[in-house]
Parts: sequence; structure tokens; C-alpha cells
Amino acid sequence: MSESTSPGTPVPATQQEREAEVTRQVLASFDGCADPRLREIMRSLAHHLHAFVRDVRLTEEEWARGIDFLTRAGHITDERRQEFILLSDVLGASMQTVAVNNEAYDDATEATVFGPFFVENSPEITQGGDLSFGAAGEPCWVEGSVTDVTGKPVAGARIEVWEADEDGFYDTQYGDDRTTARAHLFSDADGRYRFWALTPTPYPIPHDGPVGALLAAVGRSPMRASHLHFMVSAPAQRTLVTHIFVRGDELLDQDAVFGVKESLVKDFLPQPAGIPTPDGRDLGDRSWSRVRFDIVLAPEDS
Amino acid sequence: MSESTSPGTPVPATQQEREAEVTRQVLASFDGCADPRLREIMRSLAHHLHAFVRDVRLTEEEWARGIDFLTRAGHITDERRQEFILLSDVLGASMQTVAVNNEAYDDATEATVFGPFFVENSPEITQGGDLSFGAAGEPCWVEGSVTDVTGKPVAGARIEVWEADEDGFYDTQYGDDRTTARAHLFSDADGRYRFWALTPTPYPIPHDGPVGALLAAVGRSPMRASHLHFMVSAPAQRTLVTHIFVRGDELLDQDAVFGVKESLVKDFLPQPAGIPTPDGRDLGDRSWSRVRFDIVLAPEDS
Repeated sequence: MSESTSPGTPVPATQQEREAEVTRQVLASFDGCADPRLREIMRSLAHHLHAFVRDVRLTEEEWARGIDFLTRAGHITDERRQEFILLSDVLGASMQTVAVNNEAYDDATEATVFGPFFVENSPEITQGGDLSFGAAGEPCWVEGSVTDVTGKPVAGARIEVWEADEDGFYDTQYGDDRTTARAHLFSDADGRYRFWALTPTPYPIPHDGPVGALLAAVGRSPMRASHLHFMVSAPAQRTLVTHIFVRGDELLDQDAVFGVKESLVKDFLPQPAGIPTPDGRDLGDRSWSRVRFDIVLAPEDS
Repeated sequence: MSESTSPGTPVPATQQEREAEVTRQVLASFDGCADPRLREIMRSLAHHLHAFVRDVRLTEEEWARGIDFLTRAGHITDERRQEFILLSDVLGASMQTVAVNNEAYDDATEATVFGPFFVENSPEITQGGDLSFGAAGEPCWVEGSVTDVTGKPVAGARIEVWEADEDGFYDTQYGDDRTTARAHLFSDADGRYRFWALTPTPYPIPHDGPVGALLAAVGRSPMRASHLHFMVSAPAQRTLVTHIFVRGDELLDQDAVFGVKESLVKDFLPQPAGIPTPDGRDLGDRSWSRVRFDIVLAPEDS
């Protein structure tokens, strides 16, 4: 329980050997695991966890603070709040997992984080429908195509879309049972789609818990760059989970969860009030915006 | 959301670069951290966490199982149960932290895990007193000396001792307010100590939660080798947190938390009923045991 060796102080070889022996014992304890994949995961986890403790010369007080952090994260987590996903997100572990599982394939659209706000069984809208269902925000016309990597249109692709309202809240955060600002539709026979959504606005991830306190302690913002979520699936294609972002958003290079990729930044073109809408919808004295997002799906198992 | 690259399949260089770029962004996000120690810890944590995800090519389903594991660990943790400490223990992270913070010093007694069962303000016993306070088990006479690394006796060292009863339970697990099988005493003017305890017996760590399920899945036992906890403190000496173990215990090489060190394995000599006790105590028809543990304290700040 003494002070640890200061970082930078060389660790004597005999001490290094004692520490390595602890790791060896732990790795060997998984030798009897009958599931080879679980054995591989547990050995790698222990290897990296021990290397972390050694590399920073973690003090016993710091270890205790880590235990306390995890305990508080566990206690704030419930059916509506998932602090461990937030933790994974702000440490970039979520995006690293996305990267590992969605290798670049030709010019297929890139993936990004799924986030905690997707809901199964969203309402279906038809082409040109409006997914806002009364959520507040500026109307945004979204259109594009779904093709495979050979350029062939993908008809009947299921396109799930969800987003926050202009105050930064998803319907699941309202505390009632409304379903707003989320829907699904299907690409048409030419692989095309169009719908009304809301112009995305920036918002903070939930930051009143231990993850928010951690971000404050390290001088990071909890804000996410403005974005619109997509999940696109079609037979024989790799399911794409992604967002599109708003070019010019000053948060693009400091997104709290590292979700931004240059290829996903799109021009949301501002349309002053009075400009005719693509489908003749009358927006009265409201401004609106429009964006094009052409989606390219990688083949399944790529 | 495709299948990940199988372990062993080489990852293309362009893909490796994309994955490395995620890690670079995350490490850079801590550049603005005003506390250099916190910055160092968070960068190292992110580095190793990302390396783990890449090394095992963690699938999104496996990631989700990890989030679920942490959630369940958080929900079972309360004031009496600490699943995150158990997790750290069974992954050997606790012992690695002990190793880092208690570097070997001359022939000072080695440290081992603190565990979750220490309680502040234990009752004081005098030399030769009995710490069992009614807990069930075979009486065990414990004696020894406390010296510094030059061999000089340390008088007045505070010696905290705690252990499980013969059924494997600590008093904090009884569910009432009893204080049993724990006490403190002070070394005498010659640095010597002696007291009655209980012969240690093996017991499982709490294994009805996610950590227990993990141990079962990897084919590991939740049993701890039999042991008696010590914490010894004295002015100008490094506080020693350790156990002594029972030579011959078949669990010595499979302790669930990796706490065993050869130097801490002691001869608990069985004494048949009727053998006179060191202090003349009449144990009637009960057998007892005796052990010697000479404690050597490292200097403070070593």
C-alpha cells in the first residue's frame, strides 16, 4: 500500500518478472475453457487489463476509484438509461468495434455507431411521408438511392431512420409513450427513396452520471455532432448502420462518441420560406432544408 | 454487422489503418485534460481497450454481451455485495495492482489481495486472546514476530486479523450485526504476538452472480485456498496486507483470485485433542492447530 513507482521510473527486472508471473498464472487459468472463442477473448482481456495496470503503475487508490466508477455506472443504468454503452462510446470502443465488423468494401457506404436510441417496430411511412409525427424541428427533405457495389438499384430495401428533435431529445427520452421522429420505409422499384424528416441539430449525450463527470474531468464536451440515423437492410446485402452528418457543423471534429466519418458528412441545403417543395407540400412561412444521401450496400459476408 | 474477420485471417493494411485512426482520434481527445495523471490513465486505458477489440476481432454480438455482463454486475452490487471487485479479483487485476504497489523489498513479507471482507474498528484483543468470538471452527494458535528488514523488532505494530468460519462465511455475510472471527492486537515490546484464531478452511467466493457464471463458463472453480488475513501497520513501515495459507491445501495452485505466493504458505501443525496448549487453555476433547508467522515489514515509501 506504498506509493507506486512513479511513471518513468524504470521497473527493476526482478519486479517485472514478478508482475509477468501474475499475468502468466491468470492466462493459464483459462486453459481449461471448453469454448475456444471464450478462451481467446478472456485471455486477451486479461492480457490487456494487466498491461494497463502495469503501464500506468495503477495505485491501489486509483483501482478503488475505478471500482467505484463502475459501481455508480451500474446503479444509474436501468431500462431507459445505459451508462455502460455511453462509457464504451466515449472511450471509442464502440466505434472500434464498428470498424472491426464493417471492413471497408469497395465504395460501400461507411458504418458508424448504432447508439442507444433505436427502437424496434417503428411506424412505416410511404415514399414522401413524414417521420416527424409531430416532433419539433425544421422540415428536411431527404432523398437518395440504394444500390449495391456494382451500381445496381436495390428495390425493397428496408430503411430505418431515427433522430432527435430540435431540443436534442429522442422520443424514448420524453418519459411518455409517444413515437416520434422515427419510421421505416422501403426503397422503390428503382432503388430510390424520399421522405420528410427534421433538420438534425446537435445535442449532448446524457451527462448527469459518471460518464458525464468523466468527460468534464478530462475536459471533453458531451455534445454529439448533428446527425440523422439510418439502418438499411436488404437480402444478400450487409446490413448498414450509419448516420449522415451536417457539413459545416462545428462539432464534426469533436463528436463525443467519435462517430463522424468524412464520407458521411452531407450538404443539408437551407431553403428559405417560400421556396417550392419537391412534392408540393405547403410549409407556409417555414424554412426547410434538403439533403441527398445515396446508399451503397456491401454484399453480405463481405 | 457482418461476420467479423475470423481470428487468424490477416487484416488488410488499409483496414488496419482505418482501425488505428479510430484509436488515434480517441487518444487525441484526452489532450486537453488538465490533470496529467488522469490523461495518462485514460490514454492507456483507451489504448489497451482498443487493442483488445482489434486483437480478438470482437463481434457486435460479443460487445453487446459484454455490456450486458457489466449491467448485471452493476445491478447485483450493493452495500454487502461487490461484484466488480470479484471481477477484478478473478481476472487477476487485483493481484496485478498489489504486485505493482508492493514491490519486493529485501526479505520483507509479501503482500496479497485485500479482498472485500475487511471491516474497520474490529475489536481489540490482548496477547493470547481469541478472535473467534463464537464463530465455528477448530481453534488455531497463531504466533510470531514483527521485525523490520534489519531484523529489529517492531513493538506496538497494529495487527489486524480476519477470516471465514468453518462454513466459509465471514461475519459480514451472516445477515445480522455479529462481529466474529476478526480482531486487532498490538505486538509486544519484543515485537512478538500470539492469539487464538480458527484453522482456515477453503470457501467459494460469492458465485451466484455474473462472475460466478463466467467462472463456470470458462471451467474455473470459485474456491479460494484456505487462508487467514493480516494487515500490519507501524510507524515508518510500509503497511502490509497479506494472508497466510495452509501447506498441503489442494487448492493452493488454483486459488480463484490468484492470491497464493509460496512464501505465504505456512505449516499449520495439527494437534490432536489432549495435547497441552501453549497458554494452558483447556480445549477439552477438541483438536487444534498451531502456526508460526514471522512478519518482516518493508520501510515506508520503499
